[in-house]
Amino acid sequence: MNYDFSDKVTGLQASAIREILKFTSLPQVISFAAGNPAPEAFPSEAIGEIAAKIMKDNPVAALQYSITEGYAKLRETMKARLLSQNSYNPEIDDVIITSGGQQGNELSCKVLLNEHETLICEAPSFTGSLTSFKSYNVKLTGVPMEDDGMDMAMLENKLRSASKPKIIYTIPNFQNPTGICMSEAKRKKLYELACKYNVIILEDNPYGEIRFEGKPIPSVKSFDTEGRVIYVGSFSKVIAPGLRVGFVSAPKEIIQKIVVCKQVADVHTNIFAQMVCDEFVNNYNFDEHLKRIREIYKAKCHLMLSELEKHIPASVQFTRPEGGLFLWGTLPEKVNMPAFCKTAVENNVAVVPGSAFLVDENTPINSFRLNYSTPSDENIVKGCAILGEVLKQMLH
Amino acid sequence: MNYDFSDKVTGLQASAIREILKFTSLPQVISFAAGNPAPEAFPSEAIGEIAAKIMKDNPVAALQYSITEGYAKLRETMKARLLSQNSYNPEIDDVIITSGGQQGNELSCKVLLNEHETLICEAPSFTGSLTSFKSYNVKLTGVPMEDDGMDMAMLENKLRSASKPKIIYTIPNFQNPTGICMSEAKRKKLYELACKYNVIILEDNPYGEIRFEGKPIPSVKSFDTEGRVIYVGSFSKVIAPGLRVGFVSAPKEIIQKIVVCKQVADVHTNIFAQMVCDEFVNNYNFDEHLKRIREIYKAKCHLMLSELEKHIPASVQFTRPEGGLFLWGTLPEKVNMPAFCKTAVENNVAVVPGSAFLVDENTPINSFRLNYSTPSDENIVKGCAILGEVLKQMLH
Repeated sequence: MNYDFSDKVTGLQASAIREILKFTSLPQVISFAAGNPAPEAFPSEAIGEIAAKIMKDNPVAALQYSITEGYAKLRETMKARLLSQNSYNPEIDDVIITSGGQQGNELSCKVLLNEHETLICEAPSFTGSLTSFKSYNVKLTGVPMEDDGMDMAMLENKLRSASKPKIIYTIPNFQNPTGICMSEAKRKKLYELACKYNVIILEDNPYGEIRFEGKPIPSVKSFDTEGRVIYVGSFSKVIAPGLRVGFVSAPKEIIQKIVVCKQVADVHTNIFAQMVCDEFVNNYNFDEHLKRIREIYKAKCHLMLSELEKHIPASVQFTRPEGGLFLWGTLPEKVNMPAFCKTAVENNVAVVPGSAFLVDENTPINSFRLNYSTPSDENIVKGCAILGEVLKQMLH
Repeated sequence: MNYDFSDKVTGLQASAIREILKFTSLPQVISFAAGNPAPEAFPSEAIGEIAAKIMKDNPVAALQYSITEGYAKLRETMKARLLSQNSYNPEIDDVIITSGGQQGNELSCKVLLNEHETLICEAPSFTGSLTSFKSYNVKLTGVPMEDDGMDMAMLENKLRSASKPKIIYTIPNFQNPTGICMSEAKRKKLYELACKYNVIILEDNPYGEIRFEGKPIPSVKSFDTEGRVIYVGSFSKVIAPGLRVGFVSAPKEIIQKIVVCKQVADVHTNIFAQMVCDEFVNNYNFDEHLKRIREIYKAKCHLMLSELEKHIPASVQFTRPEGGLFLWGTLPEKVNMPAFCKTAVENNVAVVPGSAFLVDENTPINSFRLNYSTPSDENIVKGCAILGEVLKQMLH
């Protein structure tokens, strides 16, 4: 039978990263291509303990239908945490619990954008979000990244354009894929431009708590006096992604629309997982846990950077992230990026071609993404040496 | 600030049922308005045991990112169960695990329908699904229900119409809200019409396993030789809804599109919950458990029907469901349905007005939905007596 799919999904592809991840299931392949948190960062024992307690003391609440807005106690917890960590004091109705940060981004797009309206994103940006926007037939346009975040002049050009963008999507902290952190000056400028051109900012912050160096920078949301910033957070990188728990904080008018869309998307987020997150954040030394996992990521990041320095010719440039899971390499002009990624995987190291993170995968780009959180230290050492060999031959 | 929401969501309302459920939080209100499974039907102890085992033996698999298609073992389990229970033998790539049946219905609509295209549903039908279709700006048109399912002549009329419907949405077993079961003859006719007019059938079967009387009727999917039936199942009524685990079985071409949309909606369903469901179905006497919960629902249904018979004037008609969670009352013309629902809740019994289940809530309807799975036996007895009093006064 021939199926007549909707226009929205006809052109959608499973992400290019997934295609590369196919190779990573081969046992001999060292994967720098994933985006998984380090499994040693999961508080497995505590979660086991909490799970047992919930199923003993409160099984019906953990197993019955629950409200779409999310577990009331967890909403209160996140409200308090947004105040202490982000200097931003939402009301309880400004917060909804979502099935991962991904759902927060997707539903923000669904409630605000009609088909063929325009969303501005960073170029490069996180593929998962870009594809979710595309799945609503939204037009995407990318603003190039500089060392301290989006090019603000280019952003203003886009905002001035005839297509009248409605949302600016940004990952200000340790961006996926580049690892770049947006400076405070640019965050303020971004907010100012959003006000001037009357657009909404979608601030996606899955990595903010994984800062292992440098000083925290205020969230864009903390400047939001007009109610035009949607802030998306996640427990995936600070507790565990398999639980699929995230949250959105935004003006309650927007949250109400997200609630209706979430109600018909999945009714509510797994309530047991919400209870686990709440208990862990409140009663299991969450700040100590964060310190511990920051140390894990810092060590892995430093190891990868020093191994790259050892093996990779200086003509290849790398970002030096102060947090998060990724770094971004840029090849000299004479090396062809797709050929490099292909040769690397043939030599059993998987990296992600930078084109996977662009609005249009056919735009020329000479960069690639490396992940240091998932591979073991041993594999970081081995993999960097192999990448060095591949590059030396290609630069020869 | 004034927000410019998308056309898709501007007109969407939180469901009318939710508005009534607000009253049900008052401690004195007996709720026949819910759709929750009976909490005594949850296998809480077994789930606690399984959860502990998973967190001890396999924590990283339960906490790490997982694949969008779902936990491989659970997909195999459902494939085997579809064959044994539904005489239908899907391949593994014809099955995806979803975040509840709700997500299966929503994504089926997203991948197949453009805005303003038409979907045929039963009238009345499940509000949650209707709102999810509306959230994609899809046009809905309802086919009246008869005692044995949709009116097939009316269905063919709709199929013949200029709007060229693309999907027929049906809940063939113990439909929400009516409790009606579609006859085998009508299921065959439905499939025949779908072939004749080249449309897809979306078969939503959350209640099929809760048959406590009568003989099972083959699923529409079991007649599907052409690959035009999408079958949606759920663990919400047979294990626990808080886990948010469901599944879809459909031709792999459709599943592939659903996978892409699910990937950008919530990446994957809580993997821990998927592992719990798999373990419970395979190693905890699932069929015995089903027998036990069928007895619970049978007893509650019979109690409500006998109490209604005792107290309610014969001019009010009720369906006599052979399974599921709901029954459907129809008032004589001289009683105004909205006034009845209002008076009932003022007298501390909440029921759902039938209009909540129509495409257009303003269409006249003189019916209401009763739920027997959530209230205690004591409250079923009390509540039916109160409804009897209310009706006697209104019929006076």
